[in-house]
Amino acid sequence: MLLSSYFLPVLKEVPSEAQIVSHQLMLRAGMIRQTSAGIYSFLPLGLKVLKKIENIIREEQDRAGAVEMLMPTIQSSDLWKESGRYDDYGQEMLRIKDRHDREMLYGPTNEEMITDIVRSTIKSYKDLPKNLYHIQWKFRDEIRPRFGVMRGREFLMKDNYSFDLDEASARISYQKMYFAYLKTFARMGIKAIPMKADTGPIGGDLSHEFIVLAQTGESDVFVDNEWLEFDALSMDINYNQPLQDQFEKLSSIYAATDEMHDENGLDEDVKTNLISTKGIEVGHIFYFGTKYSKAMNTNYMGSDGQNHLMHMGSYGIGVSRLIAAIIEAHHDENGIIWPQSVAPFDLGIINLKPSHESCDKIASEMYQFSKDQGLDPLMDDTDNSIGAKFATMDLIGLPYQIAVGPKTAGDNKVEFKCRKSGEKEVLDLTAAKNRIVELFGL
Amino acid sequence: MLLSSYFLPVLKEVPSEAQIVSHQLMLRAGMIRQTSAGIYSFLPLGLKVLKKIENIIREEQDRAGAVEMLMPTIQSSDLWKESGRYDDYGQEMLRIKDRHDREMLYGPTNEEMITDIVRSTIKSYKDLPKNLYHIQWKFRDEIRPRFGVMRGREFLMKDNYSFDLDEASARISYQKMYFAYLKTFARMGIKAIPMKADTGPIGGDLSHEFIVLAQTGESDVFVDNEWLEFDALSMDINYNQPLQDQFEKLSSIYAATDEMHDENGLDEDVKTNLISTKGIEVGHIFYFGTKYSKAMNTNYMGSDGQNHLMHMGSYGIGVSRLIAAIIEAHHDENGIIWPQSVAPFDLGIINLKPSHESCDKIASEMYQFSKDQGLDPLMDDTDNSIGAKFATMDLIGLPYQIAVGPKTAGDNKVEFKCRKSGEKEVLDLTAAKNRIVELFGL
Repeated sequence: MLLSSYFLPVLKEVPSEAQIVSHQLMLRAGMIRQTSAGIYSFLPLGLKVLKKIENIIREEQDRAGAVEMLMPTIQSSDLWKESGRYDDYGQEMLRIKDRHDREMLYGPTNEEMITDIVRSTIKSYKDLPKNLYHIQWKFRDEIRPRFGVMRGREFLMKDNYSFDLDEASARISYQKMYFAYLKTFARMGIKAIPMKADTGPIGGDLSHEFIVLAQTGESDVFVDNEWLEFDALSMDINYNQPLQDQFEKLSSIYAATDEMHDENGLDEDVKTNLISTKGIEVGHIFYFGTKYSKAMNTNYMGSDGQNHLMHMGSYGIGVSRLIAAIIEAHHDENGIIWPQSVAPFDLGIINLKPSHESCDKIASEMYQFSKDQGLDPLMDDTDNSIGAKFATMDLIGLPYQIAVGPKTAGDNKVEFKCRKSGEKEVLDLTAAKNRIVELFGL
Repeated sequence: MLLSSYFLPVLKEVPSEAQIVSHQLMLRAGMIRQTSAGIYSFLPLGLKVLKKIENIIREEQDRAGAVEMLMPTIQSSDLWKESGRYDDYGQEMLRIKDRHDREMLYGPTNEEMITDIVRSTIKSYKDLPKNLYHIQWKFRDEIRPRFGVMRGREFLMKDNYSFDLDEASARISYQKMYFAYLKTFARMGIKAIPMKADTGPIGGDLSHEFIVLAQTGESDVFVDNEWLEFDALSMDINYNQPLQDQFEKLSSIYAATDEMHDENGLDEDVKTNLISTKGIEVGHIFYFGTKYSKAMNTNYMGSDGQNHLMHMGSYGIGVSRLIAAIIEAHHDENGIIWPQSVAPFDLGIINLKPSHESCDKIASEMYQFSKDQGLDPLMDDTDNSIGAKFATMDLIGLPYQIAVGPKTAGDNKVEFKCRKSGEKEVLDLTAAKNRIVELFGL
């Protein structure tokens, strides 16, 4: 993409309404724009990151055997009255009347709707288990939306729902999601730690929140130091094999949110290793047994010829919120530092002097080479000042920058910079191309 | 994907509420499920087609120089009051009050919101032209939603908005979209004919509707026979070159909706070639000049140092409706016949007798071969009856079917069927694999 053809409205000033660094940087980097309180447009750069995050989630869900579908945003109130949650949800639920005065709502979650779909289509034990997910916009009418996409009103969520024959099988579904979540977040370059959690209005007896450690987090958390050394990417998970042992081992390492934390029962060892910090919730998984299947009469015919209630779990990831969580974990005073897996472009090429013959030639050559390698480069071909170009490239945080200026272009050389380490090297074209091949494992 | 792990709730009976064939087939093939009047869940098979359609649209938009972003579904009423359309829109607009009693709405279109974004970020002639698109759910509170996703209330739309220096440049942006639309629909295997159209509440003086010819369409249309022979896929379009001549040539071939049709001015030649039929609107493009930029004070600083109003156009494609339009054009008495480009899976493999050693071996081999070739096969590994398996495969309409049964499996042979022609051939495994390579151009 050429920057002159793109839409990247960066801001020089820190917007006064933004209190936390991710919100400030997302506004400054031209990723989002508020359109109403707690409601954002994703500008092109923001949408690219959102899609990368979505795709990592999708790949890990598919790998774990979940099947993607898509439920609508607007729901009828009928199902929520059936489950008993229509009144429970209070003012956070955006309630709507349509032109025929029917009570509708903008879905804050989908337990009721998916249960209705499953009860009317799945009749036999032969059709279970099922784990269905969707990635869809949700609305929660927060009384004080704040922190940008971290606590917005309209937000993108991946939620899925597992339906099983019995509790033992439902716990297997739960464990698959536990491991899928660990992999998912690790692939985005963040460490999300599963913490035993309260089940709240969803109900049930087994639940983990996945929390990214960050000083700006809203939750107080207590974790065993061992979690900090744990590397989820190196886990070898086979979803067709029992995961019980691996699950027990990991979930016994202490990690708890404020609400669940209790030092009284802890071993001295654990107490010594305990770290108290803050975190950002990015995922939440629940096993809640027959809570909804009972309220909504969701049965299957067993191999015994009898009707049985399905056992259910639900699993959520805050997709749009993850952008902010990743930035909280990866930035410096100059801007964002994207992990390669979620970077909006793979690399940036800066033509420091457009219309200078050697600069144009070399910048174009590096741009074309990157595209030919299947990469997605952004080339700054504008006539902005050199200072502004470097500042923008640092701000938007692409992992690598290639600067092409008149001083080195005559010698067929470019300046290659790693955004994270800040290291710069002057390389000739062949070396720069080899570096790209090596860094992206091409 | 193994059918036993998938979620494909097909129906044997034609649902009584469905009047048109696409609605009947989408329900029967387990693609959608109504959750409220005019609001549908996309089950896994339906979502797959929706994504294929989305991606074709995205590729052609990107090729034509449009940039993707994403605006939210919920909007504030303020901008609509500024443009003067808040009252115009009537009861089709879903109006909402949030917990603070602020007037909100579920966006039926986004001219106001994008204009607000552009006016607050683009200040100079150097930043124009811009063409920004998004693919997002919209809501129109139809008084009588019907025909499934053809006239639903919550529907997926691609809409984009061009911003130009002046009328001449805006007409170039319009022409790019005209050709991008022709390519887009042709790639989906449907013939959508651009017809001069009334601009309606959007305003402006230049507009084309893209209409797929189908007997079940809601619009009466009149087209020159020449359109039926026109092949948009063979067009050679270079978006960096002037398109005026090609545009004038094509748009002069007669095609008009009922509202715009007038035989009085027509040449005898055209009258002779005229076909009167029905059609389904799948896209609509508008040039409306300064209608919104004037109402919403959207200026840029020109190279002359003066302020000028931007010239705008907007362009829409009904993404979810397209699924139905494609089915209306491609089906027979047994079910859907997907064009390869939008088929939910590339091919179906039917194991007619699971647990039979040769059948399992050969079905698995063909399945693995297809996956290794980068294809996306669906394998029926269930213990449903043979008749049900063939009927389901015809119903869901994958382009090719490979049946593996005990009669031929012992000889290392399969039955290869083309869904469209109905032709069947018994092939040995090598021939079947070569056929796949050939059909998919691998």
